[in-house]
Amino acid sequence: MTDTTRRLNLNVGINTTGYLGAAWTHRRDGTRQDVYDPAYYLRIARLAHRGVFDALFLSDMPLLRPEPGSRPLHTLDPLILLTSLAAQVPDIGLVATVSSTYNSPYNLARRAQSLDILSGGRLVLNIVSNFVPEVAANFGNDPLPPREIRYPRADEFLQVAKKLWASWDPRRDGDIDPGQFWGPDSAHPIEHDGDYFAVRGALNVPRGPQGHPVIAQAGASDWGLDLAAKHGEIIYCNILSRAAGQSFRQKVNERAVRFGRDPSTIKLVPGLVAIIGESREEALRKHELFSGAGSEDGLLARFAREHGIDPADFDPDAPLDGEDFIPDGDRIQAVGMGRGWAELLTHERLTARQAVRRAEGNHRLVLGTAEEVADQIIDLWADGTVDGYTYQPPRAPDDIEEFVDKVVPILQDRGVYPRAYEGRTVRDRYGLPYPD
Amino acid sequence: MTDTTRRLNLNVGINTTGYLGAAWTHRRDGTRQDVYDPAYYLRIARLAHRGVFDALFLSDMPLLRPEPGSRPLHTLDPLILLTSLAAQVPDIGLVATVSSTYNSPYNLARRAQSLDILSGGRLVLNIVSNFVPEVAANFGNDPLPPREIRYPRADEFLQVAKKLWASWDPRRDGDIDPGQFWGPDSAHPIEHDGDYFAVRGALNVPRGPQGHPVIAQAGASDWGLDLAAKHGEIIYCNILSRAAGQSFRQKVNERAVRFGRDPSTIKLVPGLVAIIGESREEALRKHELFSGAGSEDGLLARFAREHGIDPADFDPDAPLDGEDFIPDGDRIQAVGMGRGWAELLTHERLTARQAVRRAEGNHRLVLGTAEEVADQIIDLWADGTVDGYTYQPPRAPDDIEEFVDKVVPILQDRGVYPRAYEGRTVRDRYGLPYPD
Repeated sequence: MTDTTRRLNLNVGINTTGYLGAAWTHRRDGTRQDVYDPAYYLRIARLAHRGVFDALFLSDMPLLRPEPGSRPLHTLDPLILLTSLAAQVPDIGLVATVSSTYNSPYNLARRAQSLDILSGGRLVLNIVSNFVPEVAANFGNDPLPPREIRYPRADEFLQVAKKLWASWDPRRDGDIDPGQFWGPDSAHPIEHDGDYFAVRGALNVPRGPQGHPVIAQAGASDWGLDLAAKHGEIIYCNILSRAAGQSFRQKVNERAVRFGRDPSTIKLVPGLVAIIGESREEALRKHELFSGAGSEDGLLARFAREHGIDPADFDPDAPLDGEDFIPDGDRIQAVGMGRGWAELLTHERLTARQAVRRAEGNHRLVLGTAEEVADQIIDLWADGTVDGYTYQPPRAPDDIEEFVDKVVPILQDRGVYPRAYEGRTVRDRYGLPYPD
Repeated sequence: MTDTTRRLNLNVGINTTGYLGAAWTHRRDGTRQDVYDPAYYLRIARLAHRGVFDALFLSDMPLLRPEPGSRPLHTLDPLILLTSLAAQVPDIGLVATVSSTYNSPYNLARRAQSLDILSGGRLVLNIVSNFVPEVAANFGNDPLPPREIRYPRADEFLQVAKKLWASWDPRRDGDIDPGQFWGPDSAHPIEHDGDYFAVRGALNVPRGPQGHPVIAQAGASDWGLDLAAKHGEIIYCNILSRAAGQSFRQKVNERAVRFGRDPSTIKLVPGLVAIIGESREEALRKHELFSGAGSEDGLLARFAREHGIDPADFDPDAPLDGEDFIPDGDRIQAVGMGRGWAELLTHERLTARQAVRRAEGNHRLVLGTAEEVADQIIDLWADGTVDGYTYQPPRAPDDIEEFVDKVVPILQDRGVYPRAYEGRTVRDRYGLPYPD
């Protein structure tokens, strides 16, 4: 592949035991509590590097819910863990989820630019505005700020961060006196004084190899779409079908143009759960086990429960109405995640029995043999609905290994995915521009 | 050496170009602007490992002052840089300076415990309460909080962090059902509700290899001494003479006992600037060059300027009066640093010409041949005035290399310093207890 060929981008989620709640009880080596063992993550990162993944993706929430039957999905701090992995595994990018609600722009911009420099230009920052009251309780007595404050604050946070990332650039100096470390153009205060932040600057970390880290965004509410269109370069969204993806892309692109951005600089890499079997039937069975539902009936019961459907009225073989699945905008939840179901069921007439095999954790689910999984991945990429995927392994590390051994070679043979790392930074590999 | 033998502890400061302002212009390889190059720090960390240093020490201030004639002393984020180095260099401890003023306890406790786990128990946290108004301007419009708020806040910050570090401990579970990730004793909320912080918990990172990171403290004001006596395990102070060190130790110990702590669990490792020459005369000359003063007259002029002495009245060969050097408690500065001069000049009758050779950057200065430097290091350690030193190289990396090649072998031959790493964690190497 040459630089000008469009190619599939793939990230891989590396949160603790994997994406599906009960999958960790089916690990082949029987190990269970190694998710805070450095060797566990190093093994996963090396697997991912063998699979030529563009980036390791760590979602995050600064919260522990030690409920019976649950497991921790977020533990070691993402920027710290990814810094450690970057020092041990070359090439691969690093997506760190960080909260704009509970960080200060100066400190976070500094940590991020430090890692971008140390990793040689491999950092992607996935900025989230936290929406869970239990998270708020770890950061003071104030109630969770409402969405109409969280999103403008996140926007200003990123504006400040970008000013800081550009505030010290030794290249501006040109030739300087050998007895001087820097000249008068090297660094300037940013003197930001906005609605939420006042920051003088300059940042004490210079411009990095990517100009600044790539910005990822996940929101799909109106607020989230605006933030994605203003700042997002990689969009981690939930797109369950072609129609939904095209409609999402159109919405983001329209807003991006309104904000003066070129929509081709925005890449969609929605979440994807892939379950691979020797046959489709084996994959279906693994789905039932790894999800914790145990059986197809269990999946249907969970679907009814999660969507507030009365079991007495529930016909799993009756077509569903998308209208019933539009999330309530005032609910304290991640709006984008709920909206995926509505989009799917509006554009495709599905029964519950069909629908439960189309999504896990609100992300697109693809099931079948390695060939069938590869086909489904390529399908929405080939016509540009998506630019790639963020693969969420149901069970780590086993399913990452299986994906790398079985699906990646097919994608490579089809000529849509690289056989080795090309370019130097995440910007190079995603075809993203460098900031001025 | 066995575990029961008292031995010298040594850390090494690895901030950018080294400790002395103009020293970087005298680097042997002529390189200047590599202080944000990852390879530069890796080289230094490997040198330090060869010298069996207990820990790499990064002081910090979230601030850039790009003034002509200056150079950045603090750039890459300490926790991020040390995480990267820990992944590449074994054994050596990591002292990260972090602000309790501009961080939230949950996020910081999480980052720190993550690094302690990833490094196998090598983290020391040097908690500082920032005192510079320019730093405050990077974190909002509020003026710098006064000392009577900053220190109680730092105290509560550490109380919260310690509760969080103990809040999730999988070892409390014992045998649990194989289908469950954790049992009911694994993690508990801390429900902290204090004067400055409200934090529910539990922390989403479990207890680490050291129980929690070792706590370092630097303050020497009344507030700072209290904080050191309550929480400090390693004290980075400025001790310019035996009498000053013994007086400082006594003050810390008395307060520690009042707070119910065993004073033997508090280790003094003050800063030390060592300048090595083939002869003492060469070391004196290097001192004049690396400090930027250029000559002994330059050192004297700087001394007069820094202490507000009128040059017209200044007799560099007249004995100085310690009373004149007691810092004003209301000044916005690091009180402990100024106090060092007063302590020195109260206990020893020195002229300015003598005094300028006794301290650099408010830390003890030792000058001479490698033998003479080793003698002076051992001198205050042998009778227990100090437990070791935090060596601040005038010029990095050259002076670290020189210290490792010339001074360390002498310390090893004298039987006061190890030839290889012993123990597993920083607690082991400093003889510090593990928290319950």
